[in-house]
Amino acid sequence: MSLIVMKFGGTSMAGIERIRNVAARVKREVEAGNRVAVVVSAMAGETDRLVALCREASPLAAPAEYDVVVSSGEQVTTGLLAIALNAAGIRARSFQGWQLPVTTSDAHGVARIQEIGTAALRATLDGGAVAVIPGFQGVTADGRVTTLGRGGSDTSAVAVAAALKADRCDIYTDVEGVYTTDPRIVPRARKLARITYEEMLELASVGAKVLQTRSVELAMKEKVRLAVLSSFSDEPGTLVVDEDEIVEQELIAGVAYDRNEAKVTIVAVPDRPGAVAAIFGALAGANINVDMIVQNIAHDSATTDVTFTVPRTELARAKAILEGARGEVGFERLIADENVVKVSVVGVGMKSHAGVAVTMFRALADRGINIQAITTSEIKISVLIAEEYLELAVRVLHTAYGLDAAA
Amino acid sequence: MSLIVMKFGGTSMAGIERIRNVAARVKREVEAGNRVAVVVSAMAGETDRLVALCREASPLAAPAEYDVVVSSGEQVTTGLLAIALNAAGIRARSFQGWQLPVTTSDAHGVARIQEIGTAALRATLDGGAVAVIPGFQGVTADGRVTTLGRGGSDTSAVAVAAALKADRCDIYTDVEGVYTTDPRIVPRARKLARITYEEMLELASVGAKVLQTRSVELAMKEKVRLAVLSSFSDEPGTLVVDEDEIVEQELIAGVAYDRNEAKVTIVAVPDRPGAVAAIFGALAGANINVDMIVQNIAHDSATTDVTFTVPRTELARAKAILEGARGEVGFERLIADENVVKVSVVGVGMKSHAGVAVTMFRALADRGINIQAITTSEIKISVLIAEEYLELAVRVLHTAYGLDAAA
Repeated sequence: MSLIVMKFGGTSMAGIERIRNVAARVKREVEAGNRVAVVVSAMAGETDRLVALCREASPLAAPAEYDVVVSSGEQVTTGLLAIALNAAGIRARSFQGWQLPVTTSDAHGVARIQEIGTAALRATLDGGAVAVIPGFQGVTADGRVTTLGRGGSDTSAVAVAAALKADRCDIYTDVEGVYTTDPRIVPRARKLARITYEEMLELASVGAKVLQTRSVELAMKEKVRLAVLSSFSDEPGTLVVDEDEIVEQELIAGVAYDRNEAKVTIVAVPDRPGAVAAIFGALAGANINVDMIVQNIAHDSATTDVTFTVPRTELARAKAILEGARGEVGFERLIADENVVKVSVVGVGMKSHAGVAVTMFRALADRGINIQAITTSEIKISVLIAEEYLELAVRVLHTAYGLDAAA
Repeated sequence: MSLIVMKFGGTSMAGIERIRNVAARVKREVEAGNRVAVVVSAMAGETDRLVALCREASPLAAPAEYDVVVSSGEQVTTGLLAIALNAAGIRARSFQGWQLPVTTSDAHGVARIQEIGTAALRATLDGGAVAVIPGFQGVTADGRVTTLGRGGSDTSAVAVAAALKADRCDIYTDVEGVYTTDPRIVPRARKLARITYEEMLELASVGAKVLQTRSVELAMKEKVRLAVLSSFSDEPGTLVVDEDEIVEQELIAGVAYDRNEAKVTIVAVPDRPGAVAAIFGALAGANINVDMIVQNIAHDSATTDVTFTVPRTELARAKAILEGARGEVGFERLIADENVVKVSVVGVGMKSHAGVAVTMFRALADRGINIQAITTSEIKISVLIAEEYLELAVRVLHTAYGLDAAA
């Protein structure tokens, strides 16, 4: 008899018909002899509606009260799923964040889970009933409602699985699993049977938003076996596991891309100590995340060019801050380019294989795609290219690394 | 410095614009130097929406989970009002039922308040902040969410006022107060400046639904000074107070009516001990409330006719039960009439004045209105008449007792 945590996202909970479908899936696991805790999101669209109400009441809504309002969406779906389960003959009860409790930090709107009380939960599961738990919400040590930030329900599910030492944490979504790349760009993208936590993290951080990054970090830390599955099909999904559980390691797990990049070049920065530090210090002070950095060879003895990327959504703010620092830093001018994307290949296999980067550079060069910047980690190589080449680059790399499904 | 409980109904909370209007009213009381606790309903229509979701999930929704779902409407409005108050420069925080706690019985859906924790509430009010509390919801001793039944927010407000020994409990509604009768029928109906608890109870129970009956009973028992006011005007409302606070007692406070009546006549019931008891026993067993009863003079030595009223909404069920009992009781037949209404005059003044009933009977007789049944209490006289005479009867009685406003 296994203990399973099942998590259903907003699309899976959107309306009573779909909630009944979820109840049927839960019932199947119960009838197979498993003990089951279910973590649910709010109905698709509901959190947006509640956030809009808060913003309408005040653009700077009191964060503790914002949490009271937006956490209600998950309260509703826990109750409705418990009703649907009981109606289907499966004993079930809901536990709100304050009832377990799911204790969090007091950073309202972006709280972090600190501890999950499992006594009542275990008693319910051991008694043969299903526990239905709201994702996204928690409670501070002094009893105020908190939320974990958007997408936090994945993290809630993993935290519940870790606290219960569950055998599995099944994340039901509206996709069938994790793919080698975006199937809208590469029709021959393959669903991965297994992927490591590290690869999943790198894929998530470069834009393949199947799971929330924090949930994968937590699963890795707590050794929770994650599965990504579709609510709307019975196909096997993707297992996210430890590296040593993957027997036949592929070199590359997938090709990801991120459109939220903008390139900034600062021309003729004085080549003196502290000038470059002043630039990045100003951006860090404004909480703007700088990603890829290239410092060009100095034109002459006196100046150098610095190129880096910032999130495209932050470009306007970054430009304003840099212009404001121009007097202090003393550079000549600033060139911004929004027509760039980051394309990455990710795979734990590259740790032990040389030549992975060469394959990438050669494949892109063969199609005349110019690389504007490069960053690497142990299991990822990312390049910045002109946005117009995005689809071509992804397809070329998918083929170059042998990821295409058999025709 | 007074301690005031202000309660706002669903119409007053329907949308952010109206919630801002509520915040402005609360702000005025705070700036006048009062300590203020606010009790709020869900936005108009929201509870209906949530109930419909539960019913769609299962017609027999698990009651404990039904409460989890439907209580969320008030959670949302507490948060939104606290946000609006803070945005208006008034420190405020919400307290959910489980946070105070508002301890109730475990009769889910129709729970009764047992105790309200006031420590956190008092600390908040004494610290100069406003407490915003959801009406309608509570929590059992073992920590499950409950609701009080429809209209329960009035009762929540009175219970909070009683627990805090508040100086006043102001109930803001969409009417301007309690009227001598329905202004849609009698344009010259007057708003009462004061009314006693007893009168308010009798008016509520005969269909003048300004306040929930339970809230008035509780206010009477706990000596809470209630005021009924409009959210949408600054007119003074109606004070509901103890009898001895009313200096110039009017004979009659108002004329009420109730369309939810149906008349049943059971013809030729055997005139033997137990026959009538068997009839009413069968109805009581089915939880059908019998109101006015008239036992006619026996036609002969062997049988009698019995006439009574039941709620119109229960008539079909009552008929089925009575037909089922016909064999045992042995009556001849059953006549049902839905075209009846109950019209009542209510006033504590009639305790000490004879002749009140005579005025009523004479006024109705003068217009040719036949009285089909009569019941009386210490402060109320009710008559059953044909529904077609409803408006005429109400107008005639309103004039006969001198209640018409000056033209």
